[in-house]
Amino acid sequence: MLDPVDAVAMLGEVGAWGVNFHDNDLVPIDATPADRDRIVTAFRRACEKHGIVVPMATVSLFSDPVFKDGAFTANDPAVRAYAVQKTMRAMDLGAELGAKTFVLWGGREGTETDACRRPDEAVKRLREAIDFLCEYSIDRAYGYRFALEAKPNEPRGDIYMATTGNYLGFIPTLGHPDLVGVNPEVAHETMAGLNFTHAVAQAWEAGKLFHIDLNDQVSGRYDQDFRFGAANLKASFFLVKFLEDVGYDGPRHFDAHAYRTEDYEGVKEFARGCMRTYLIMKEKAMRWNADAEIQAIVKAAHEAGQAAPSFAKYSSGQRDAVLDAPLDRTVLAARGLGYEKLDQLTNEIILGIR
Amino acid sequence: MLDPVDAVAMLGEVGAWGVNFHDNDLVPIDATPADRDRIVTAFRRACEKHGIVVPMATVSLFSDPVFKDGAFTANDPAVRAYAVQKTMRAMDLGAELGAKTFVLWGGREGTETDACRRPDEAVKRLREAIDFLCEYSIDRAYGYRFALEAKPNEPRGDIYMATTGNYLGFIPTLGHPDLVGVNPEVAHETMAGLNFTHAVAQAWEAGKLFHIDLNDQVSGRYDQDFRFGAANLKASFFLVKFLEDVGYDGPRHFDAHAYRTEDYEGVKEFARGCMRTYLIMKEKAMRWNADAEIQAIVKAAHEAGQAAPSFAKYSSGQRDAVLDAPLDRTVLAARGLGYEKLDQLTNEIILGIR
Amino acid sequence: MLDPVDAVAMLGEVGAWGVNFHDNDLVPIDATPADRDRIVTAFRRACEKHGIVVPMATVSLFSDPVFKDGAFTANDPAVRAYAVQKTMRAMDLGAELGAKTFVLWGGREGTETDACRRPDEAVKRLREAIDFLCEYSIDRAYGYRFALEAKPNEPRGDIYMATTGNYLGFIPTLGHPDLVGVNPEVAHETMAGLNFTHAVAQAWEAGKLFHIDLNDQVSGRYDQDFRFGAANLKASFFLVKFLEDVGYDGPRHFDAHAYRTEDYEGVKEFARGCMRTYLIMKEKAMRWNADAEIQAIVKAAHEAGQAAPSFAKYSSGQRDAVLDAPLDRTVLAARGLGYEKLDQLTNEIILGIR
Amino acid sequence: MLDPVDAVAMLGEVGAWGVNFHDNDLVPIDATPADRDRIVTAFRRACEKHGIVVPMATVSLFSDPVFKDGAFTANDPAVRAYAVQKTMRAMDLGAELGAKTFVLWGGREGTETDACRRPDEAVKRLREAIDFLCEYSIDRAYGYRFALEAKPNEPRGDIYMATTGNYLGFIPTLGHPDLVGVNPEVAHETMAGLNFTHAVAQAWEAGKLFHIDLNDQVSGRYDQDFRFGAANLKASFFLVKFLEDVGYDGPRHFDAHAYRTEDYEGVKEFARGCMRTYLIMKEKAMRWNADAEIQAIVKAAHEAGQAAPSFAKYSSGQRDAVLDAPLDRTVLAARGLGYEKLDQLTNEIILGIR
Repeated sequence: MLDPVDAVAMLGEVGAWGVNFHDNDLVPIDATPADRDRIVTAFRRACEKHGIVVPMATVSLFSDPVFKDGAFTANDPAVRAYAVQKTMRAMDLGAELGAKTFVLWGGREGTETDACRRPDEAVKRLREAIDFLCEYSIDRAYGYRFALEAKPNEPRGDIYMATTGNYLGFIPTLGHPDLVGVNPEVAHETMAGLNFTHAVAQAWEAGKLFHIDLNDQVSGRYDQDFRFGAANLKASFFLVKFLEDVGYDGPRHFDAHAYRTEDYEGVKEFARGCMRTYLIMKEKAMRWNADAEIQAIVKAAHEAGQAAPSFAKYSSGQRDAVLDAPLDRTVLAARGLGYEKLDQLTNEIILGIR
Repeated sequence: MLDPVDAVAMLGEVGAWGVNFHDNDLVPIDATPADRDRIVTAFRRACEKHGIVVPMATVSLFSDPVFKDGAFTANDPAVRAYAVQKTMRAMDLGAELGAKTFVLWGGREGTETDACRRPDEAVKRLREAIDFLCEYSIDRAYGYRFALEAKPNEPRGDIYMATTGNYLGFIPTLGHPDLVGVNPEVAHETMAGLNFTHAVAQAWEAGKLFHIDLNDQVSGRYDQDFRFGAANLKASFFLVKFLEDVGYDGPRHFDAHAYRTEDYEGVKEFARGCMRTYLIMKEKAMRWNADAEIQAIVKAAHEAGQAAPSFAKYSSGQRDAVLDAPLDRTVLAARGLGYEKLDQLTNEIILGIR
Repeated sequence: MLDPVDAVAMLGEVGAWGVNFHDNDLVPIDATPADRDRIVTAFRRACEKHGIVVPMATVSLFSDPVFKDGAFTANDPAVRAYAVQKTMRAMDLGAELGAKTFVLWGGREGTETDACRRPDEAVKRLREAIDFLCEYSIDRAYGYRFALEAKPNEPRGDIYMATTGNYLGFIPTLGHPDLVGVNPEVAHETMAGLNFTHAVAQAWEAGKLFHIDLNDQVSGRYDQDFRFGAANLKASFFLVKFLEDVGYDGPRHFDAHAYRTEDYEGVKEFARGCMRTYLIMKEKAMRWNADAEIQAIVKAAHEAGQAAPSFAKYSSGQRDAVLDAPLDRTVLAARGLGYEKLDQLTNEIILGIR
Repeated sequence: MLDPVDAVAMLGEVGAWGVNFHDNDLVPIDATPADRDRIVTAFRRACEKHGIVVPMATVSLFSDPVFKDGAFTANDPAVRAYAVQKTMRAMDLGAELGAKTFVLWGGREGTETDACRRPDEAVKRLREAIDFLCEYSIDRAYGYRFALEAKPNEPRGDIYMATTGNYLGFIPTLGHPDLVGVNPEVAHETMAGLNFTHAVAQAWEAGKLFHIDLNDQVSGRYDQDFRFGAANLKASFFLVKFLEDVGYDGPRHFDAHAYRTEDYEGVKEFARGCMRTYLIMKEKAMRWNADAEIQAIVKAAHEAGQAAPSFAKYSSGQRDAVLDAPLDRTVLAARGLGYEKLDQLTNEIILGIR
């Protein structure tokens, strides 16, 4: 693994904007306070030198064997306390480097056998920990927004908060729901065969898309973390198109790994490839939006039944208008929607022949 | 398919408590008002005769080709209005038969190509429809609670609200979140390889487990809807144990289908098997709870670090207590948790040799 | 569904080369002999008129409820005999229309519960049927080559011959292995998350790629049969590249279905899209082969250790040469292979920006 | 990880029959010849002391970074030669300890990007290596039978020989097909959602079940290698029943790993649990075979159409008998098969209440 200072240099060289890290990527878990300060100073200088910012920080609650039964949800109260303590210190570290987003990925919060605890108990423990950390951020005036990152499995057999949806359901039950959003990751949602852009869209629409992890993945596999666009060009296109269409202005974090076949040069190619593919897809999304034939198909699909009664706002009048509307299902069903052509044209935009 | 009146007779014969139906299972989509009334009367009499109640009603927003592009989320406003109209009428029907839970499964709310609409637009349309239907229930004093049922795919390539978690995240954004909960289904969560009991537990803990659909399923497949317990005995055990441990008192709805190899007798065996397996697992859950060796392992795992500082409530004192607590991660990591033995003993309870 | 004569007309219009059918797509299962002859005559004329050939025929051993427990592997000997009889007649029909390849897809040859028969018994029954059918083809001088088509599940819970590999293993155990090969289908292999091109390559290398079914599919789902290239552009590229590189000269059969949203025009667009995407990928494959930077990376990866001893042919000399060769694993491991760059360049060929 | 000598002691303590190992589990990859001999001697003595045999040996062609692009299929000829050399030495080691089965698992024989080589080239390279190793075994009179072990993915994105079926298709193309069979592993076939017992049955029926790896796994996940029976009790039952029914007399190799939560005692429980669950299932299989109600359902399903013409042997007489047989598909389709009851009774055998 690259030394953090060298990693920052490489990121500067390939044209990246920022860098993130787990606490122990930067400061070894057994570093002395003096070591820690020296490392942090060197790292900050490297960031300044190469023009790299630290928008997000996070904490490793998964590598160390202490978390083998979970971190915030472990059965042992001392492990839970250690996880909270470690996170508080990682928050201190991130704040020192200017981070305003704090990601929490509960990779060990799960089970191989559900005999070990009741799963609703795990939810309560998770809430307790996150509520405490929100208070800590307020107390220290760190100004963090927390971004919760879901994953269905691996390293645990089953992780409690398996999908971005689960976190979107969990957040409104917290003490400070306004401080907490999600950090969806392409690979994590795709592992379960779910449509990642749909999950991102729901998070965005709810005002909860605080951060995003970009990479690529084949469904039904171990966590591959491929270069952005390496596995599914079409899904990458729709994702970039969505982020650009809605004006997402948070970080585009490439949380990916180069193939094991690569040397240092190969890793640089990998890093460049992530950013380059994003920009290629952004350009294609603009082209798609400007394509008259494509827009005509989409428009036609939306405008067929404009005379239908609205149910946007309830009233006794609208109730009766909807109940009595003369809507003929066989007529409505007969219309072709042109989606085969629409999808083929979309593919041809992606393939660069349109 | 069985006639609804005959189905009620069979359910009475095998000892079921209640029956549910999609509107068009009972009343054909093209029935006249007079047909409808005659059918409903005959059905109600059959229910009374066989001692079967109708706790839940629902609406088919998926079988008819009119919904080929979605129902509440279809691009054509007239299709959306038709879907709302059809649901209002199904609510009338359900109320007439005494139903207090109304299930909404958006099986067509999805896409084969995401070129057809922006996915955040779909979320907005879904909200608009459900808000309107909540108002309708209040207006008519039907007293419904709505239970939203997720599914990742099939009949659509990707369904928008893919998991129970997605609905748990969606509900707090509604106009009447208190009226709306979820209806998780074993097969639907399992199709995506997710741990069903974890999803149920999150819903329960949030007060949103309004209904549950029991059946069985192999991951990564088409919707199999197997007899309860047919595919995964261990998952069935943990599910029943959870429902019984927390005292879930809503309907246990077996939404399953007999193998295509079966005749009428086979379908009865199938229906009996669903209920019988539930009761077997309930008995095994009680045995598990009473097993001293099992309980000792669980207790030991929970009690190791009782001297650890609490972070249940934030204060500057507790902040410092957590930050300063002398927690040694190598000591904590060294403890064996006994989960292999715990899981083997659990298996032996299930296998009936303990 | 389109009438077969109309379907041939559409295929002629969109520029297809051939058409295939299941016996009952053309001749209803309950047709009289006179009906059959009339239908066949009309169909042959339509083919002649539109310049469409019939390279392959097949038999439906799955739609009718008689096959609910399997066809060649059903427990009931009469069902097995009926399946063989029906296939013999479908062979007659195909031969009459000029088909030289006969596809067998055993969609019902499987189980929902393995309690119903021993799975090795199913293998024996399958062999018995195919051996008999090979003899029938020889006897009648039909000149068929049989192409066996695997699928992991759906309509059955588990199908016995789940992957193309299973059939490649089964064929050498037959009475006439030379007459029997495989018909891999993109969707069927992809459902199980397997790399389709790898399976095709193994079949090709073994001389067993008698036919191929092209469409598209997302892993871990029901059988989607999407338009070729609709789901995974990169996998489609590698598949076309392989078929073109090796000079596969059998039919390229698009066994796909248009989205349910389509009308007649949409189905034509769908059919055109399948063929168009194949040709686009073929052009991109040629471009890839001609790209000097890409070829240099591939060449470098292959040539590093040319001085290594060969083990292509065993002898005591080569044995000792291999045993004694001074091969330093740390030196060999240190080489970067440039695959990130190679893959990114490949993506850029596909995306049309190279 | 346990020292091999200690591992043998534990295996003796828990009652195991044999032990297997990868070459480098026993002898470190960088051991000197003197170290090697000392280690082997100590290990053999431990085996003798604890009554443990070494029925199978294998070689690690995956852990070392030298294999990052494959072993027998790597692009670099020197890596391929190194892989063959290393395997020859592992064969020497295994022979010295009495092993008669040699397992080859090509965990690195695959790709992340198919741009790196043509997949048919990989098949040819694999054949070349295995042919050479077969000759080496003959030359040295080691008497090995080789058992090839498939896996769909992980550590590589896609492994070439993805399923047991692929190897069954590959073996007949080898120089010494009689020396080569398969080593199916529960987890590997199950990862791809395939029915493991079906694959085992095909291998058995072809005379190719040379070895078997028992553990457990959830579909669509990373390689979990759970304790036998930990994930899917029903699949474990059908597997054991098959192995016992056919009289498989090879090793039952538990290739599993304890949860990461376990200490030394927990690992022992895990090892005991594997063997204990196998024996429990064996007893249940006997009970199933002896259950009159179960046997009656199976018998009825098999005997319905005994008057049907046979197609076991082709002749013009049997041809005509089959073609002319009066088989009525609607009558055949109408029979219920009783599989719901059969499966429920099977479940009740497994659950120990029958």
